[in-house]
Amino acid sequence: MHVQIIGAAGMIGRKLVGAISRTGKLGERAVTALTLADAIKPDAPAGFSGDVSIKAVDIADPATAGQLLAGRPDVIVHLAAIVSGEAEQDFDKGYRINLDGTRYLFDAVRELSQADGYCPRLVFASSIAVFGAPFPDKIDDTFLPAPLTSYGTQKAIGELLLQDYSRRGFFDGLAIRLPTICIRPGLPNKAASGFFSGILREPLAGKQAVLPVPDTVRHWHASPRAAVGFLTHAATMDLGPVGHRRVLNMPGVSATVAEQIEALRNIAGDKAVALIRREPDPDIMRIVAGWPQDFAPERAIELGFRAETSFEEIIRIHIEDEMGGRL
Amino acid sequence: MHVQIIGAAGMIGRKLVGAISRTGKLGERAVTALTLADAIKPDAPAGFSGDVSIKAVDIADPATAGQLLAGRPDVIVHLAAIVSGEAEQDFDKGYRINLDGTRYLFDAVRELSQADGYCPRLVFASSIAVFGAPFPDKIDDTFLPAPLTSYGTQKAIGELLLQDYSRRGFFDGLAIRLPTICIRPGLPNKAASGFFSGILREPLAGKQAVLPVPDTVRHWHASPRAAVGFLTHAATMDLGPVGHRRVLNMPGVSATVAEQIEALRNIAGDKAVALIRREPDPDIMRIVAGWPQDFAPERAIELGFRAETSFEEIIRIHIEDEMGGRL
Repeated sequence: MHVQIIGAAGMIGRKLVGAISRTGKLGERAVTALTLADAIKPDAPAGFSGDVSIKAVDIADPATAGQLLAGRPDVIVHLAAIVSGEAEQDFDKGYRINLDGTRYLFDAVRELSQADGYCPRLVFASSIAVFGAPFPDKIDDTFLPAPLTSYGTQKAIGELLLQDYSRRGFFDGLAIRLPTICIRPGLPNKAASGFFSGILREPLAGKQAVLPVPDTVRHWHASPRAAVGFLTHAATMDLGPVGHRRVLNMPGVSATVAEQIEALRNIAGDKAVALIRREPDPDIMRIVAGWPQDFAPERAIELGFRAETSFEEIIRIHIEDEMGGRL
Repeated sequence: MHVQIIGAAGMIGRKLVGAISRTGKLGERAVTALTLADAIKPDAPAGFSGDVSIKAVDIADPATAGQLLAGRPDVIVHLAAIVSGEAEQDFDKGYRINLDGTRYLFDAVRELSQADGYCPRLVFASSIAVFGAPFPDKIDDTFLPAPLTSYGTQKAIGELLLQDYSRRGFFDGLAIRLPTICIRPGLPNKAASGFFSGILREPLAGKQAVLPVPDTVRHWHASPRAAVGFLTHAATMDLGPVGHRRVLNMPGVSATVAEQIEALRNIAGDKAVALIRREPDPDIMRIVAGWPQDFAPERAIELGFRAETSFEEIIRIHIEDEMGGRL
């Protein structure tokens, strides 16, 4: 099976490539070829023994998608996006990459489909950013997308296109709405959501972290490992039972910041918790107030998607996957 | 006030122009200039005493929208679309007109907005075609759009763009999801929904009509007069209370075909009902099975939108507006 990952240089992309390289498989299926593309050249997949093609591309260039598809990948995982903050700051760039880039990709698949019946699996990484307040206590599978950011708008449009193109038979698509990924490895970043990871990752490494919101704030999380699992399942599962609604809210852990901190205390002790400094930030508080808090992702669970079931599990996965298993 | 109507040659467009021409007003506001555009040249607005500009345009041409906006209309009513059946048959044309054309319009407004703060009211005629089965008994204001046609997909994308552009302050937008318009005047057409009007309009005129579905089929209707009222209210109301969710399900009458027929009997007698010939059509039955049946359009009603409250009222309006008040 030939797998193409667009957005392979991002955090989730690198983890997905790592999982394929380690096992030679995507789920249960052997991977014989990998095409990795991103705006910056992705790293070579260490240890992968199949054919490899690595490309630095601009997906907002209408010619890119056709070139990417020359090898007729069996599975396309579309992770490429300008993130929320940048799409909000740079309106044109967000629409160019997140909407036009996605549509060029879908249309390039469509052209091949109409020419000779090519019909790959296409997995689109969407986001809970398609939702905007006000919310019910738990967002169910029939709640409307009403994004409050341009990024969320662009993802919601990508979902609609994916469903129409799938219904038409141009590809076999599935869009998965990822929870906020926690604990994100790496350095602190300036994303408004960064503190959800920072207040755990930094204390686990013996460093101070800033908490800009009250600890009553509730949000929806899954680990990077769970995200790789979601993408793998979406890429390989039988889509027959999914029907025409090809967009799924992914499972996750709903937790308040206080619950996150208690999980940290249970695993790393009071010493780690003492490294969290409370510095309320009205801007971040305002942004976070518009974010989803909890979901009832029944369809995804019925279809076999699995996330963590507690924040302690999320923290343990970080320790295993990012810290060599040791505090 | 300068009002621009794009799609002015269609049935609803002509009725809206007629209402403005008769009164010199849109709602309570005096109209001093009208710009009418469509793919075919709209008729001159008989009796309108203000400035008039009439244009045949191709909205899928990226240059069109900028030219249309040269006169800086205060209100833009965007009705132009390839209808459902044609958008399903001609994929490219549907996306070109219904998606690209809408985006070109929105972006042309945005350019002027960013240049000098231009911020017109923009009313977008969306449709209950954004919804796809399965449904709850009544579709409420938070039910997800899950279109089962390319037309519905294109309308749902237009709604998302309108909300993002409105949130950004590029224009002051409102999208209204029109019920199936009944009784459509004119000749029978081949739209799958055509029979809903046909089984009333034709017998009222002493002609036979074909009913291709069982009389248990339930659907959501409003008159052409109600549609003009929706557009007028959307174009002139205070949008302050609407917030960021700038898409509203319009009110209407939920009725079974049997209830439609009883209303016809009450107004025009058994003789009229006898002109309906039952000829089940499996294709039409299958299409109609995916359509919404009933709504709870609470937000729209709170915001002052009004439709008919019975099918008899819908029939009487047809007799008044299309038959000179006489059977």
